[in-house]
Order: sequence, then structure tokens, then C-alpha cells
Amino acid sequence: MGRWAPDAAGRLQAAAVELFVDQGFAATTVPQIAARAGLTTRTFFRHYTDKRDVLFSGEEELPDVVAQVFSQAAPDLSPIDVVMHGLQTVIAPRLQDHHADLRTRRDIVRSDKGLQERDAYKLASLGHAATAGFTDRGLSPLYAATAASIAVGVYDIAVNLWLDGDGTPTLTDAVTTARDALELIVSWPPMGNRVAPGREP
Amino acid sequence: MGRWAPDAAGRLQAAAVELFVDQGFAATTVPQIAARAGLTTRTFFRHYTDKRDVLFSGEEELPDVVAQVFSQAAPDLSPIDVVMHGLQTVIAPRLQDHHADLRTRRDIVRSDKGLQERDAYKLASLGHAATAGFTDRGLSPLYAATAASIAVGVYDIAVNLWLDGDGTPTLTDAVTTARDALELIVSWPPMGNRVAPGREP
Repeated sequence: MGRWAPDAAGRLQAAAVELFVDQGFAATTVPQIAARAGLTTRTFFRHYTDKRDVLFSGEEELPDVVAQVFSQAAPDLSPIDVVMHGLQTVIAPRLQDHHADLRTRRDIVRSDKGLQERDAYKLASLGHAATAGFTDRGLSPLYAATAASIAVGVYDIAVNLWLDGDGTPTLTDAVTTARDALELIVSWPPMGNRVAPGREP
Repeated sequence: MGRWAPDAAGRLQAAAVELFVDQGFAATTVPQIAARAGLTTRTFFRHYTDKRDVLFSGEEELPDVVAQVFSQAAPDLSPIDVVMHGLQTVIAPRLQDHHADLRTRRDIVRSDKGLQERDAYKLASLGHAATAGFTDRGLSPLYAATAASIAVGVYDIAVNLWLDGDGTPTLTDAVTTARDALELIVSWPPMGNRVAPGREP
């Protein structure tokens, strides 16, 4: 039946998320997901490696997305401005209409250690792609790794800040807030050189 | 035989690493590891959950180590100075005598996606522990997450920089280098405000 099903991957994903929410990730099986989607187990495995994989679809596009960020960034942008440009003009538009789905996904990921591992790996992969992008812009390996680490940190903090809320502030606003927090923490006056900045954002 | 074996966990770990290096992580089985260590499979499972677990022993101490960092940090240290203090006086002394072993471990981790996932999760856990520590020091959730993200970034970059070398510069030096790189990237003049800093460290 699989080959007549329009968007089998999408139906399987929707069915999987419903089941993960209803009965938990651990208790959900691939045959249950396939049955809920009205498809066969065989069709499931044509689209996904395992039930975990369903929550990471689109991941294979990440290197292309990061490459797009770097190809669109003017050559004389500072590393932080490349990060801001990428997050605000490439990444945020891809995510911003999916607040509820991404929040549900985050809840599921947080419920299972294996999912958390894979999610952490996804962030690390994003970092590797960004390191390559900054290296191509002429940064030394150390500076490229540092800029990429900042990119991943700002992205992760901004997305979580955005998902913690109800969609307002927007993801674009959250990216700016995360960048400002980074600059404040890095420039925090050392001990003995008070007045310290306020501790609340 | 297990209960007469002195340091069975250590012998199993050494045997596992030898096998992972000789024949690859994927091709190595728990019975092979136990046999190489002169112990039973049952003894293996008294110490480790699976073969992957062998490369993450000591991980359960991480929350205590991070708690130690925060308990030793003077109350008026800036967040970055807490990070530097922790990495240089608590973390570096724990790692610095294990350069060769940690480099071998890194090679093994890089050879397997499942190990990379778990390693990324370990870094994320370090970040969660640091976020809690900074929150306890009175930082807002946003600032605590930001400071923790910086801590993890500086740690990761410093350890890799140190492992890329032959042990000189030391890990303590590498931590300083990573912190300096962070400050430089964050303060990099924006476009149109040249002269830019040199691109090589």
C-alpha cells in the first residue's frame, strides 16, 4: 500500500509523535506507528531507520543549510555577525512556523536518554559544519572552532528560550537576546573591578 | 574468578581499549573483552552496562566535579573567571597526566557514531551541571545557560587543542588560549569598523 500513500513519511511522523506523546517513546513500537498511519512496517523502514530516526528527519539537510548561511554571508562580516545573519535570515525562517511541533518534539527528546544523546550529536554536527564554514572564510582552526562553538551556543539557547515561551518573543528576538547575553557574560568585569552589571536580563 | 581480581574494572577497560584499537569498536564483543582481561562476561556486566560504557567510566563523577568547581569559586568571581578557575584548578589536574590515554580514547570515539552521540551527551550533561551551578550563584536562567555554554565550549576546544599536540602546551595553557580566542571572536570589530584583528592565533 505504501507506494500509493501520499507523503508516507509525513504520515508516519505524525503517527509516531502522537504515540510518543500518548504512551511514551519507550513503549511505542514501529508496527504501532505504521498501523496508526495506515501503512505497513515495510513502508516505515523505507523512510526511517528506526523509531528514533523519525524525530530527526531533515537532519541530513543541515550541512546544506549551514553551507547556505556561509555562501550568503558577506566576506567582511565579523564571525559573530555571520552567526547572527545565519540564525536570523536562514535558520529562524525555517523554524519559526513550527513552535508547537518543536516544543512537543523537545518534550519527547527530554523523556529519553537515547534521544538526548542523538540530539546532542546533532548540535555537535552543526558545530562541525560551522567550523568548516569559518575555516573556508580564512579563520585559523582555533578561531573557526571558537566561532562555531559560539554559533551552536547562541542557537541552542535561543531556540530553548523561544520554546520556553508561547512564540512571543519570536525566535529572531531570542537570537538577539542570546547574543546580548553572550557579550555581557564575556565582558563581565573581573573581581575587584566593580560595579558588576545587573544579574537579571 | 572475578571477586579475586584486583581492579577488575581497570583490567576490563585496558583490555577493551586494546581490542577497540586493534580490531575496531564495532568488531569487538563483550566476551572478547572479558577473555582478554582474564575475567568472565558476568564480571564485565558487574562493572559496565555494555562495551560503550567502558569508554565513559568516571562519567558519574561529573556532577560532583562540577559541584566542587562551584563550591571552591569565590563568590565575587565573574562567570568567566569561575569557568577559568574550574578548568585550571579542578578539571585540568584530573586530566593532565592522561594525555596518551585520552588521545586514544578520542580516536576510538571518533570511529563510531554511537560513541560520538554519547560523547556529545556527556558535554551536554556538563553544561546542565554548570547551568545549575551558575543558577545557584544567582545568575538568571538565561545568563546561567550562557555562562555554562561558554564553559563547555572553552573546555571542549581546550581539550581538543591539548590532545592535538604532544602534551605541550599543557591543558592549562590550552584553556587560556581557548578563553583568549573566545574573547577575540566576541569582540571582533563589526563590518565597516576596521582594522580587524589578525586571523591567526
